[in-house]
Amino acid sequence: MSCLSFYLENMRMPESERALKRAEAQLMLKGKLIKIDIEWGWANPVGGFMREEEYLQSLHFNCLRLSDDSFVNMSLPIVLALTTKIRRQSGASPNVGLVSPNGDLVGILRSVQVYKHNKEERIARTWGTTAPGLPYVEEVITPAGSWLIGGDLEVLEPIQHNDGLDRHRLSPRELRKEFDRRPADAVFAFQLRNPVHNGHALLMNDTRKRLLEMGYKNPADDVPLDIRIEQHSKFFLLPISSINVLEDGLLDPETTVVAIFPSPMHYAGPTEVQWHAKVRINAGANFYIVGRDPAGMSHPTEKRVLYDLDHRKKVLSMAPGLEKLNILPFWVAAYDIVEKKMAFFDPSRAKDFVFISGTKMRTYARNGENPPDGFMCPGGWNVLVKYYESLQVEEAVQPPAVFSA
Amino acid sequence: MSCLSFYLENMRMPESERALKRAEAQLMLKGKLIKIDIEWGWANPVGGFMREEEYLQSLHFNCLRLSDDSFVNMSLPIVLALTTKIRRQSGASPNVGLVSPNGDLVGILRSVQVYKHNKEERIARTWGTTAPGLPYVEEVITPAGSWLIGGDLEVLEPIQHNDGLDRHRLSPRELRKEFDRRPADAVFAFQLRNPVHNGHALLMNDTRKRLLEMGYKNPADDVPLDIRIEQHSKFFLLPISSINVLEDGLLDPETTVVAIFPSPMHYAGPTEVQWHAKVRINAGANFYIVGRDPAGMSHPTEKRVLYDLDHRKKVLSMAPGLEKLNILPFWVAAYDIVEKKMAFFDPSRAKDFVFISGTKMRTYARNGENPPDGFMCPGGWNVLVKYYESLQVEEAVQPPAVFSA
Repeated sequence: MSCLSFYLENMRMPESERALKRAEAQLMLKGKLIKIDIEWGWANPVGGFMREEEYLQSLHFNCLRLSDDSFVNMSLPIVLALTTKIRRQSGASPNVGLVSPNGDLVGILRSVQVYKHNKEERIARTWGTTAPGLPYVEEVITPAGSWLIGGDLEVLEPIQHNDGLDRHRLSPRELRKEFDRRPADAVFAFQLRNPVHNGHALLMNDTRKRLLEMGYKNPADDVPLDIRIEQHSKFFLLPISSINVLEDGLLDPETTVVAIFPSPMHYAGPTEVQWHAKVRINAGANFYIVGRDPAGMSHPTEKRVLYDLDHRKKVLSMAPGLEKLNILPFWVAAYDIVEKKMAFFDPSRAKDFVFISGTKMRTYARNGENPPDGFMCPGGWNVLVKYYESLQVEEAVQPPAVFSA
Repeated sequence: MSCLSFYLENMRMPESERALKRAEAQLMLKGKLIKIDIEWGWANPVGGFMREEEYLQSLHFNCLRLSDDSFVNMSLPIVLALTTKIRRQSGASPNVGLVSPNGDLVGILRSVQVYKHNKEERIARTWGTTAPGLPYVEEVITPAGSWLIGGDLEVLEPIQHNDGLDRHRLSPRELRKEFDRRPADAVFAFQLRNPVHNGHALLMNDTRKRLLEMGYKNPADDVPLDIRIEQHSKFFLLPISSINVLEDGLLDPETTVVAIFPSPMHYAGPTEVQWHAKVRINAGANFYIVGRDPAGMSHPTEKRVLYDLDHRKKVLSMAPGLEKLNILPFWVAAYDIVEKKMAFFDPSRAKDFVFISGTKMRTYARNGENPPDGFMCPGGWNVLVKYYESLQVEEAVQPPAVFSA
């Protein structure tokens, strides 16, 4: 079950068993994990870092063939890189102990297979471009080793991020249990990278309304709060701003579950969106709202968006292994200057609407300006402003990060 | 049925009907085809040039979802490019008349859809690299228009290449009929780009032997003769050299069918090999021998092969939609200097074997030297030598072609 999440279900082994495994792992060759390696989760049925067979299927087909010849979607390769030096040391070791970035022994990779890390091919087939300037490539792939090591993962210790958010790091099993407890008969997901504003809340509340109209009795949403952790720390606050949206009453806590979606952001457009949707199925969702430009970015070297805005929805609707997911239309919300609130855009009175992009929102926050009334709940906005203030102090001290979002 | 082949089944319409359609097409906007556009074939269930839905599935999943939710393999996009100028002229035309490179009206593309030709993404996802120097990219994609036009193809005239080989341009239906007539209970295919030598004949005869041992009564091979036409003319002789292999008695004409496989060569490794295998299923094959480096080439800018030699076999064995195909192991044949014939390589007496690569073979032929006795049947060799002699005359007159194979 979703073994890649380090905060997941297979830590339920008795302490005596764990001690035994820990002793065993001490004698193994150790592999040091980097931060991104412990950010993957909800990857069922992938039971560890991918062996070459899974890696190639992921790259070529965006899906894995199961033993019964059915397909499960798996569009991003979940791999662990190895330098040539470590590879030489490892020799024929069947098992490798995994050490977290802060030095703790956290897991064992069993029956390992080492294979070539063809970075160029991985990048080309994942992003559809090899242009320099892709954040994940520069941050993670380029500095990585020339070999990949795959195997079955056994988790010994839950990874604690100690950022005050660990209680929101739920496993798919815990989430499903939570949805059952409520009980929800429909669960909908909305992938969101920007800070949550009232337009998003409107969209989610409206989705709930539409699902009720469709006959569902209690649709829950696992989202906006279900925002992935980015490797760059500026995104770590987002779940908190999301919680404020809850606390300020814009979303109903009874029908909203707050959980962090463990996945390093790739900005790989249609390829990544499949992964975002697929893991939501693992976590119990059966409805999915595709945003306007999810996992998108500008082309790093050309003056255009990297991915056509409509390709994500098209690819999602055709992807092998995503048949179970119902894709809901995305309604564009904008700020209505007459009504002074976020509302669904009405083209018949277009001039009454202002679009406030994530970038514009962050510019407001960065400059200490306020957005128009009714754009975001005050609690959420304050968190954002404070965060950007703290960031400016940091930026004065540190060099700029590669991730510029 | 495999409508993309211009020499295929749907030309069986009565002349009166054809005349009517021809008259209709005269009034349509015309699209001029280039040579490569008429080289596709056996593409069932793709019924024309791809619309965006098929194109995206091909790029992202290497397979198409059918209406019953099963998958058929389709790893190469079969598309028709359009310049922005022609696109503007076409406006909202639902149907377009297709004109062959020599000016004949040969078909109609119906219910057309025009969409963006994102060349960079197409190249990256097809080849796994965007490095400059990929022959198909430089020859076909780079000079092509920025738009693609898809639709249902109606063929009005069989394309005649008038190269003396048109009788070998069989449709999948004709091939299946031929296999039934013999009657063959197993059909095996071996993808081959180089001139046929005795090692290939050995491999095919041995495959037949093994299939007989497996219990098949009459295995036929649709191959080495089933060699695709390359856009560069030097490959046009290959089928003839293959016929010589037949005539010299190295392959049994009773169990060998000579047919040209209509497909422009991409050198796209694992992605292209799926297409080579998939169309053989269309043509009636149920066994497939994967060669050592099919559709492979050197990396255009780095000192390595572009594709790992074992990836093709791995990808083939896992590809969605290729479940029906049995993949046979490839045995390496080499020239045995003791026995003076091509034989399966025996590592226990490695020093007795000489490997004669396609390049080496062409060098012999180009320099008018003879290969060792028993390497190739004399008839086949003579054809090759004569071809290279004619090429040298040509080369003295013309600039070198982009395709260097």
